[in-house]
Amino acid sequence: MRATRGRRSRGLRLQPGAVSLRAEPTRAVRILGLDPGSVVTGFGVVDVGPKGTCYLASGSIRAGRGALAGRLQLIFRHVTELVDTYAPGEVAIERVFMHANPDSALKLGQARGAALCAAGHGGAAIHEYTPREVKLALTGTGGAEKEQVQHMVKALLGLQGRLGADAADALAIALCHSHHLGLGRPGGFR
Amino acid sequence: MRATRGRRSRGLRLQPGAVSLRAEPTRAVRILGLDPGSVVTGFGVVDVGPKGTCYLASGSIRAGRGALAGRLQLIFRHVTELVDTYAPGEVAIERVFMHANPDSALKLGQARGAALCAAGHGGAAIHEYTPREVKLALTGTGGAEKEQVQHMVKALLGLQGRLGADAADALAIALCHSHHLGLGRPGGFR
Repeated sequence: MRATRGRRSRGLRLQPGAVSLRAEPTRAVRILGLDPGSVVTGFGVVDVGPKGTCYLASGSIRAGRGALAGRLQLIFRHVTELVDTYAPGEVAIERVFMHANPDSALKLGQARGAALCAAGHGGAAIHEYTPREVKLALTGTGGAEKEQVQHMVKALLGLQGRLGADAADALAIALCHSHHLGLGRPGGFR
Repeated sequence: MRATRGRRSRGLRLQPGAVSLRAEPTRAVRILGLDPGSVVTGFGVVDVGPKGTCYLASGSIRAGRGALAGRLQLIFRHVTELVDTYAPGEVAIERVFMHANPDSALKLGQARGAALCAAGHGGAAIHEYTPREVKLALTGTGGAEKEQVQHMVKALLGLQGRLGADAADALAIALCHSHHLGLGRPGGFR
């Protein structure tokens, strides 16, 4: 088999003779973005394909303040439902570095553990991005304010009205991943 | 309904007219003890009943050092298998306080999140104990050395030969829980 013959790269099928690894996909890639937290986990689902980026769903899972095991199982159950409903081909999640507070880091870790177990349940590849990478992909600067990122999420997806902060963060991570797949370059979103 | 009539307390059904919350059970309670870690998760399964404490299984799940999502899914899958195989009525896990290092706390949290999601999968109640409570239940002192706890696990369960440190820690948590259920008072183990 020749190297250029219909091989896959990061879930994209390249056309025979393609020279760029960033070729436009021939069909949409569905991305689930997740922003796990011990109290609220944001999620966002987008389809990215040759015709642009299409918003499918977003929202938040509120784990509440009950017993730890019940909260984690709630996150796990709801993320499993999302995976079963939307069957994402790729999952994107924020990478966490050096949290200041060990107690918060433990709580965040537990929520991430629950979300990541459920996210991988359908066999989707999981990708992590730092907050800086997300800001850079969405706004062109790694030091952008949260509001600027949220504004860009709405603008890029053509969303009107109010968008929850957790849902917006999760959509931003999904859009960052589409950008890294070579699908969301500036002007490449619909 | 009268307060003393057949009510449940921590999974034990009290006989009508019982005055003690520490009544001996009429049948065995199966306890799964878990000691999650980002690299190794220990587990131990015991049956505790009117005839004493019976060792069923113990061991460790090695998540290895691959990609985060894969490691967490491995923990989740193996703990789910344990729950499916042994159908524990109760699960006991170590409570974590104030980890010194935020990075380690995040990693430990992720492993705990994966293990707790799987542990609750069969509907078992989940109980947490501090390391001090485990030491106190097993040795009579909250400041006991790890080796002393491991020695007591082997002595109380009548185990010969080598017992891995992670498996021993998980069995110690299971035995601590049986003690708190009123089943593992000194001399109450087999």
